Amino acid sequence: MASTQNPHPHALFGLIEALRCLPGVGPKSAQRMAYHLLQHDRQGATALATALQHALKGLTHCQRCNTFSETDLCDRCASSKRDATQLCVVETPVDMNMMEQTQAYQGLYYVLMGRISPLDGVGPRALGLDKLIERVQDGAVREVILATNYTNEGEATAHYITTLLAAEGIKVSRLARGVPVGGELEFVDSGTLAQALRERRILE
Amino acid sequence: MASTQNPHPHALFGLIEALRCLPGVGPKSAQRMAYHLLQHDRQGATALATALQHALKGLTHCQRCNTFSETDLCDRCASSKRDATQLCVVETPVDMNMMEQTQAYQGLYYVLMGRISPLDGVGPRALGLDKLIERVQDGAVREVILATNYTNEGEATAHYITTLLAAEGIKVSRLARGVPVGGELEFVDSGTLAQALRERRILE
Repeated sequence: MASTQNPHPHALFGLIEALRCLPGVGPKSAQRMAYHLLQHDRQGATALATALQHALKGLTHCQRCNTFSETDLCDRCASSKRDATQLCVVETPVDMNMMEQTQAYQGLYYVLMGRISPLDGVGPRALGLDKLIERVQDGAVREVILATNYTNEGEATAHYITTLLAAEGIKVSRLARGVPVGGELEFVDSGTLAQALRERRILE
Repeated sequence: MASTQNPHPHALFGLIEALRCLPGVGPKSAQRMAYHLLQHDRQGATALATALQHALKGLTHCQRCNTFSETDLCDRCASSKRDATQLCVVETPVDMNMMEQTQAYQGLYYVLMGRISPLDGVGPRALGLDKLIERVQDGAVREVILATNYTNEGEATAHYITTLLAAEGIKVSRLARGVPVGGELEFVDSGTLAQALRERRILE
């Protein structure tokens, strides 16, 4: 009987295994990716290896907002054009980019790089919330806007941060919940609708 | 107005772009992957960069069967235990592995590393079918088993190879089509069922 244990040459097997560190990539996808790169895009594979090493070496966290940055202070924190009295707390750099895309916010950010998630073993300490408290105490911040997700974990994180900041005498706000812009009530889930009702605005 | 053009530091932007060489990875997934690697799996990212370079440097094509190999001749082609009179032609190394897993085939393989696909600009020449013809003329091969997919492109490829081999006086066969083992007629598509009827076996 021919051997069917490990059908791949060593270097190929290693690549397939290594690709599985990517989120959402299982054994089948990893195999497909490896074959694709080796057969159809060796140039892309070379570029990817270089980019990984470049990013690992060049990227650190901004000392003020904690997002990824190539310098001690990211461009945004270093800018004098931002409103230093507002600090928006988000879970990830992606969320920060989403906020920026609204073009409705001129303040600064703090990126948690995660959320409180007891199931994944991430408590307030692992999340480094002490760094956030330190950031808030710079004398300029007047309002902390909590823009964590409206998931259970994001809510728990927001709640915990609110408690922490209560002692600091700083205004804490939370993104409004409600019907999406352009949304039809028919297609909004009832939890959202109930919140939108409870948090209804008085029209002037 | 704050800049919203490129919200990523240079090295991060480079990594996100580079990840898009992976099949099925769009801008959103690439961004998610980059953040994940940098925040949660720097070790995995380092390993991936190394594995890519290792694979690019170490893997070439087996001179006989054309699959990926770290040596001029892959283990299978170098083995004396395989039946050199049978040559199974498959589209990809994955297909070869599928055939091996059946444990029902003891012959050798030829891996096309693709299929004839005019829409993608892959003709018989780009597929290197001359290398297959050369392989078949080794004096040992008695039967070529075409195991390309039963897609339009796989069928066209099989048809073209059949024509090429007609001149060589070598027996050419094709994997049977039919009802899957354990399959219920109710759930088999009518094309397959029609083929299964046309290609019915006489029971002895």
